[in-house]
Amino acid sequence: MDSTNNNKYLFSLDIKVRDYELDSEGIVNNAIYQHYLELTRHEFCTATGFSFDEMRREGIIPVVNRIEIDYRRPLVSGDVMESKLWVEERGVRFIFHQDIFHKASGDVVVNAKVSIVCLEDGKLSRGERLHEYFRPFLETAKQ
Amino acid sequence: MDSTNNNKYLFSLDIKVRDYELDSEGIVNNAIYQHYLELTRHEFCTATGFSFDEMRREGIIPVVNRIEIDYRRPLVSGDVMESKLWVEERGVRFIFHQDIFHKASGDVVVNAKVSIVCLEDGKLSRGERLHEYFRPFLETAKQ
Amino acid sequence: MDSTNNNKYLFSLDIKVRDYELDSEGIVNNAIYQHYLELTRHEFCTATGFSFDEMRREGIIPVVNRIEIDYRRPLVSGDVMESKLWVEERGVRFIFHQDIFHKASGDVVVNAKVSIVCLEDGKLSRGERLHEYFRPFLETAKQ
Amino acid sequence: MDSTNNNKYLFSLDIKVRDYELDSEGIVNNAIYQHYLELTRHEFCTATGFSFDEMRREGIIPVVNRIEIDYRRPLVSGDVMESKLWVEERGVRFIFHQDIFHKASGDVVVNAKVSIVCLEDGKLSRGERLHEYFRPFLETAKQ
Repeated sequence: MDSTNNNKYLFSLDIKVRDYELDSEGIVNNAIYQHYLELTRHEFCTATGFSFDEMRREGIIPVVNRIEIDYRRPLVSGDVMESKLWVEERGVRFIFHQDIFHKASGDVVVNAKVSIVCLEDGKLSRGERLHEYFRPFLETAKQ
Repeated sequence: MDSTNNNKYLFSLDIKVRDYELDSEGIVNNAIYQHYLELTRHEFCTATGFSFDEMRREGIIPVVNRIEIDYRRPLVSGDVMESKLWVEERGVRFIFHQDIFHKASGDVVVNAKVSIVCLEDGKLSRGERLHEYFRPFLETAKQ
Repeated sequence: MDSTNNNKYLFSLDIKVRDYELDSEGIVNNAIYQHYLELTRHEFCTATGFSFDEMRREGIIPVVNRIEIDYRRPLVSGDVMESKLWVEERGVRFIFHQDIFHKASGDVVVNAKVSIVCLEDGKLSRGERLHEYFRPFLETAKQ
Repeated sequence: MDSTNNNKYLFSLDIKVRDYELDSEGIVNNAIYQHYLELTRHEFCTATGFSFDEMRREGIIPVVNRIEIDYRRPLVSGDVMESKLWVEERGVRFIFHQDIFHKASGDVVVNAKVSIVCLEDGKLSRGERLHEYFRPFLETAKQ
């Protein structure tokens, strides 16, 4: 399945479920996955050498303009996930393909696509600075 | 635009932004919109006479299996939103069409589609009980 | 009991529990009460004519330096609370006495004391501006 | 200072600030520290061999009945903290002394005292089961 194609992933982060993230069903609340996905993107950016904090200081604001999440199976107390991503450029947008796996079983937990645009000095930009930082990763993704 | 077609809405909830929902950009964090959307669905269900709490007690667990959100403009401190929805049935799924508007300006804030399935006693169900409660609303939606 | 002395309250806000605030015990998570308390203080400030957003724009940053919360009884899905406060000055600190009640029964849910100091231009201030806005309320509190 | 006496600590957990935990001041929101403190207690319990999930399955519900937090300095994006605790018994209560340090500088971030009681089958208990698990740690704490 394309969305879980292991060859394309550029980055992986292990995250352990925290009990305060559970809802009254005893499973991780749906909204929390957006936190996991954001955390993974931010850690990826830090790993490329350009943290969100630095982006802000340089006047670059990455903005999520669309998100799609398919929920495959829930996570519960004590679970560890592997949160993986690869990135694709489409015009002015960066599409983050993000999949989360239940580490112990390898089961898919969520498949997500997150579309990001960049604001520079308040205006939509081509994201050249981000592109520059992501280039080695984007080229890998094309192969 | 279809997704903001006022005629179809079955339910509307005013929600005021709370300052702890803002992120370091001073705007409502993306993940918080899932909270707003969930709150709106739960209040809608309560209004139909069948709250989530009652569903749980009857062994019916509505589960989000897919969500799509388009982010159109941000909300800031003090903003009030109108969170509206209509519902559509597709096989075993209920599709909640949910749009959030900036109340003062009428601007679209987010357009979302949330797909829900029902578990009864742990198994996927046709959601007959929910269907029964939603029927007057679903029939309105068809017209 | 002093901490629930109805005569002293300057402000009251009704807040309804949202299902995403429940934890896996089916009760509101302890940390969420800090959100309720902050929301109540911010709405109080807005009611006095000086919102947190305006404070920030004027370079005044109110900072919580100590919090004490006694948890008396839990809140569950569907509950409505009355969140009340009165304010006391002690040197450079404003002490917010905040109590939350279960609306239907009148039961005490939490008793809290929140100590606030003001930073102006990054330095500890006597909070004169805040004092000015709070004066009518502070004088009432003394009686 | 007693509250930061390194000899007494039984457990330490490194936690990295996540960007979604920041508020509009760009610092970690006050309520989030309760999450950090809870996370640290739960990880401590897991380390003693008795996770919160297992407690629940055995009908033991630890309940926070009082919390005191002194906020010393804020945390910002990218910061790593050391979250430490020691435990003391007082009658039916377990008092968790929890201190969080800014890892890079050693600065105190918060000092907290969290009082816990145990419900067994819905009634207040002496917490014998917890006591049994905590005993090696409690004895260390006395020395």
